[in-house]
Amino acid sequence: MKKIINEPTQVVDEMLQGLSFMHDDLVERLDGFDVIVRKAEKTGKVGLISGGGSGHEPSHAGFVGDGMLSAAICGAVFTSPTPDQILEAIKAADEGAGVCMVIKNYSGDIMNFEIAQELAEMEGIDVASVVVDDDIAVENSLYTQGRRGVAGTILVHKILGDAARSGKSLAEMKDLADKLVLEIKTIGLALSGATVPEVGKPGFVLEDDEFEYGVGIHGEPGYKKEKMQPSAQLASELVEKLSEGFQLKAGERYGLLINGLGSTPLMEQYVFANDVAKLLHEKGVELAFKKIGNYMTSIDMAGLSLTLIRLADDEWLDALNAPVTTPAW
Amino acid sequence: MKKIINEPTQVVDEMLQGLSFMHDDLVERLDGFDVIVRKAEKTGKVGLISGGGSGHEPSHAGFVGDGMLSAAICGAVFTSPTPDQILEAIKAADEGAGVCMVIKNYSGDIMNFEIAQELAEMEGIDVASVVVDDDIAVENSLYTQGRRGVAGTILVHKILGDAARSGKSLAEMKDLADKLVLEIKTIGLALSGATVPEVGKPGFVLEDDEFEYGVGIHGEPGYKKEKMQPSAQLASELVEKLSEGFQLKAGERYGLLINGLGSTPLMEQYVFANDVAKLLHEKGVELAFKKIGNYMTSIDMAGLSLTLIRLADDEWLDALNAPVTTPAW
Repeated sequence: MKKIINEPTQVVDEMLQGLSFMHDDLVERLDGFDVIVRKAEKTGKVGLISGGGSGHEPSHAGFVGDGMLSAAICGAVFTSPTPDQILEAIKAADEGAGVCMVIKNYSGDIMNFEIAQELAEMEGIDVASVVVDDDIAVENSLYTQGRRGVAGTILVHKILGDAARSGKSLAEMKDLADKLVLEIKTIGLALSGATVPEVGKPGFVLEDDEFEYGVGIHGEPGYKKEKMQPSAQLASELVEKLSEGFQLKAGERYGLLINGLGSTPLMEQYVFANDVAKLLHEKGVELAFKKIGNYMTSIDMAGLSLTLIRLADDEWLDALNAPVTTPAW
Repeated sequence: MKKIINEPTQVVDEMLQGLSFMHDDLVERLDGFDVIVRKAEKTGKVGLISGGGSGHEPSHAGFVGDGMLSAAICGAVFTSPTPDQILEAIKAADEGAGVCMVIKNYSGDIMNFEIAQELAEMEGIDVASVVVDDDIAVENSLYTQGRRGVAGTILVHKILGDAARSGKSLAEMKDLADKLVLEIKTIGLALSGATVPEVGKPGFVLEDDEFEYGVGIHGEPGYKKEKMQPSAQLASELVEKLSEGFQLKAGERYGLLINGLGSTPLMEQYVFANDVAKLLHEKGVELAFKKIGNYMTSIDMAGLSLTLIRLADDEWLDALNAPVTTPAW
């Protein structure tokens, strides 16, 4: 393992120190916790938090800021944050109108966020939550009942963040969130495994000419390993899967997110985007929102994911396009 | 070589198609050329262009937009763009007040930008240029007389872009540019080589426990290979080199750019940032501007670079902080 780190056990702590230093105009670290909070006056709005294991940077701390998250909880690498950390984030995010939690669908995350919710409610804070399970690659997985939560989560952050900023109530946010997650689907592929610093070697190994469809962002198995194929063929497989998942129809309006998993250069992401563009154009869908880059990574995994959101509501599109001040949106 | 591409010979073309598709709200591709131009009304201001070989994405096309570049020329991978392409960019960028070219110091780039300048001047367009040679790792290199131009170039784009937007004349821009490049220095390190698609294997190979200081963004040799070291030690070497280069003094004010070379995760960049922060704090310098991420990459190279800009003028800081609308700033 060659990594620019010090002690592997200290990676998350030092990363959060570095992150809060580099973005000290926007965010700060909650003293004594692995929680990044936004620097802002409390104005009595609903707080919005998210989090999970580290290793997916810039998710989630990079999305803390005006118009997106109030706070992010950063667990150990690929490990759910503990309830006490989540509770501190809830307390920090609470402005008196309650707190909405965005949870990726991993069993450990759900358990710990729910415990934190109970603890917060005992302290008199209203808490609601939404579970994102956008990865249509597989049903059930190594750490998940149902479908995994992956890159589509950042679209949930963006749309709910805008709703919170606009003054929506906790009940309205919960209602919006539940509708939203039904309209977001993601599928990805990996060319290599990710190396967790404390493990020191990749979580799985692919042959030099091999890739895998549907790998999870912690290296959970996908649905098919194949010999390497041209981008156009990869794009076709992923677009078809999403198309089936949505029962996509010509004339519908979608948003598109192409997400690099860590070590796949923008060069490749753009080549892939070009192939995706052609396929979606052939299907006659309108792409009203587009975003590309490394947003929900898996440390140094090579690969990417493709997310579509069906823009069932004009307000969702406005929310996606609304300006925010965060380190990474 | 495992890459998400189609034909290696088509990578730049398809990448530019993908780029102009994904960011069609901000930029477009100049029909028939490998030039990305911003979508904006011409308002009689100085045009600002840059470019070079591809493989450094998001540089430079990702910095085309309001407040930064008017156009970017994208050569073949790691290959200078040709004079005819540069000429088209100059013509597209010209709003009647002349065009300023930002050139990274590589012999091929300088030759071709100069030829294009002559051609443009024959067509009656005033052209000025500035050469960025911020890499203090080595004097002279594989493709360079003097010092190489690397990540500090994006700070030149930002400050000159703001100057152009504010209505400065070509002569004023040239004067500013010449002062600016003296105050920007960069030094980097690599953990792996980059693989050019048409070559199919890394430009150089490091051992599993080895890294190299001062490698160029095309894989040009650096100044020292060593066994892998902790981030704190890497940061110390790079900070000391920059400190010597600037003859840095306590009380001075700088801007900081930590730039990932392609496949180094943000996790590692933030750990490194934390080490850099401590060292610069000890030296008593004020960091008035900070930026981190993948901005001047070398395809899939692992590693990073550290850039400092001495903020000799308050206007430079204002320019760095001014809002822009580009795909990648």
